[in-house]
Amino acid sequence: MKKYSDFLTLAEKHLAAISLSNQPVELYAPITYILSLGGKRLRPVLTLIANDMFGGTEDKAIHAALAVEVFHNFSLVHDDIMDKADIRRGKPTVHKKWNETIAILSGDLMMIKAVELLCLSNHNLLPELLAVFNKTAAQVCEGQQYDMNFETQEIVTTEDYLKMIELKTAVLLGCSLKLGAICAGANKNDAEQVYEFGKNIGLAFQIQDDILDSFGDGNLVGKKIGGDITSNKKTILLIELLTHISETDSLLLHDLLHKSTVNNEAKINGMLALYNTYEVKQKAAAMKEEFLQKAFVNLASINLPGEKKMLLKQTAIDLMERIS
Amino acid sequence: MKKYSDFLTLAEKHLAAISLSNQPVELYAPITYILSLGGKRLRPVLTLIANDMFGGTEDKAIHAALAVEVFHNFSLVHDDIMDKADIRRGKPTVHKKWNETIAILSGDLMMIKAVELLCLSNHNLLPELLAVFNKTAAQVCEGQQYDMNFETQEIVTTEDYLKMIELKTAVLLGCSLKLGAICAGANKNDAEQVYEFGKNIGLAFQIQDDILDSFGDGNLVGKKIGGDITSNKKTILLIELLTHISETDSLLLHDLLHKSTVNNEAKINGMLALYNTYEVKQKAAAMKEEFLQKAFVNLASINLPGEKKMLLKQTAIDLMERIS
Repeated sequence: MKKYSDFLTLAEKHLAAISLSNQPVELYAPITYILSLGGKRLRPVLTLIANDMFGGTEDKAIHAALAVEVFHNFSLVHDDIMDKADIRRGKPTVHKKWNETIAILSGDLMMIKAVELLCLSNHNLLPELLAVFNKTAAQVCEGQQYDMNFETQEIVTTEDYLKMIELKTAVLLGCSLKLGAICAGANKNDAEQVYEFGKNIGLAFQIQDDILDSFGDGNLVGKKIGGDITSNKKTILLIELLTHISETDSLLLHDLLHKSTVNNEAKINGMLALYNTYEVKQKAAAMKEEFLQKAFVNLASINLPGEKKMLLKQTAIDLMERIS
Repeated sequence: MKKYSDFLTLAEKHLAAISLSNQPVELYAPITYILSLGGKRLRPVLTLIANDMFGGTEDKAIHAALAVEVFHNFSLVHDDIMDKADIRRGKPTVHKKWNETIAILSGDLMMIKAVELLCLSNHNLLPELLAVFNKTAAQVCEGQQYDMNFETQEIVTTEDYLKMIELKTAVLLGCSLKLGAICAGANKNDAEQVYEFGKNIGLAFQIQDDILDSFGDGNLVGKKIGGDITSNKKTILLIELLTHISETDSLLLHDLLHKSTVNNEAKINGMLALYNTYEVKQKAAAMKEEFLQKAFVNLASINLPGEKKMLLKQTAIDLMERIS
């Protein structure tokens, strides 16, 4: 049976071969740079796995796979400007290494290149592929805007939060899989189920990401723990805490969030204590589990023999095991 | 015979009807705003004229027409961020009225919406339409990057300049016309000639724009004269001057460009005097005329009866008569 790493190797090979030798160099060098920073290449690998699962040969889906990866990197470059992030995968972000103008413009160009790559797919499939891609691309922008709004929005409900991560993160995983399914000629229902599978995995993954940022083992997760806490980020943990907290504790919480005299260590310890008191980690973990189970129901309903679906199931399990 | 204004009315009607009532409002309101600022709607009108010229009914090309207008507005929103421009068509730019994050993201969304609109065209034509659109979209980004580079680039040749305006401005006019031609089912050669016609008109138009900014009648042109001069913009006039200037005069020029003690009025007068001495207006006007004549040769070579081509010819002539 083929493994995740087989599809990863394939995606890496084709990504490295995308022709980006155009002028002006200021515009194309950042694209080569960001695409070379690596990562697990989850999205293109999902496209290739779905295509393979439904019986497609790799040439059928490789362009769609590259398109979702280039699109994803476009969104990273622009999000990093908006989030004023200096570091991405241990390296300077594009707007830091070059400047903001170049980051905006090379991001724009990546978005265009993503469409261009997708258009290299079977021409008969273009209307269907582009419909899924365009809808998803718009949703990713909507999700980012909601995320930006949350920074200044007083009340964010769990419902608001789930909608935001669905748009910002989850739909692109669903889209990546669905594009692969369409490329392979899967039927409408199976393509929809694999989309829903991806979306639910994406939701579970994002909730897990929030849990790990506060409760993970820094060495295992690969980043400093508590970053979300020190930046007052409205994660599922904080939102659940705000929903359930008593009046007395909310005064303490207010001080932890807003008093400049509280240092980072005290803030992290104080917040973790509140998270433990209100069992928000358990609440979030239960939500994550619910989405994971939904995803497995989606997968089970796909009309293929079980062994064909093994790799996708294993991929989901592996994603969830990046845990503390 | 149909007139420019007939197609303008049609474009305006359909633009106003684009559904943009989605959430979050922070993302969609700027799109409605920028699209409502008006303008001559040159690009969608060109698409509709070309479609009509080659015998297409309006429903065939309306989506492509809207796509080019939405794409054009995407590029304006992002360019205004990069150029730090506060005003567009007499109103605050998107990043001024809202903020930079919203301007980046609503611009991104417009780019996506442009592709989405184009995809509403006849599905059999999508590969051809998207190929032209994607290539042009990438070129527009390249042109903007060259323009940005010029700000700090010591030597800009006439050739550099022509390449920049071709990419940044001219190819989108060619693309607008070619999309209309493809929608109407024009043959390959005619579609190519109408593209070249648009590109050459675009080059002539941009050169004229540079001339008008220094030599126009402010009341007729609708903006303050001399803005390019006071901002040391590398227009065709300045580039031609730098190419031909004597060693003695270049000292004077250096002072005009870089001495902070020279006030704007003195700078404009001094630069105009140099422009007159070296007859750069005449040189630029000759280039403009050359592109205009090339465009008319392109138009003549299109395999249609003369009366079918009248409106396009008249449109080009009208564009060139916005003159001092």
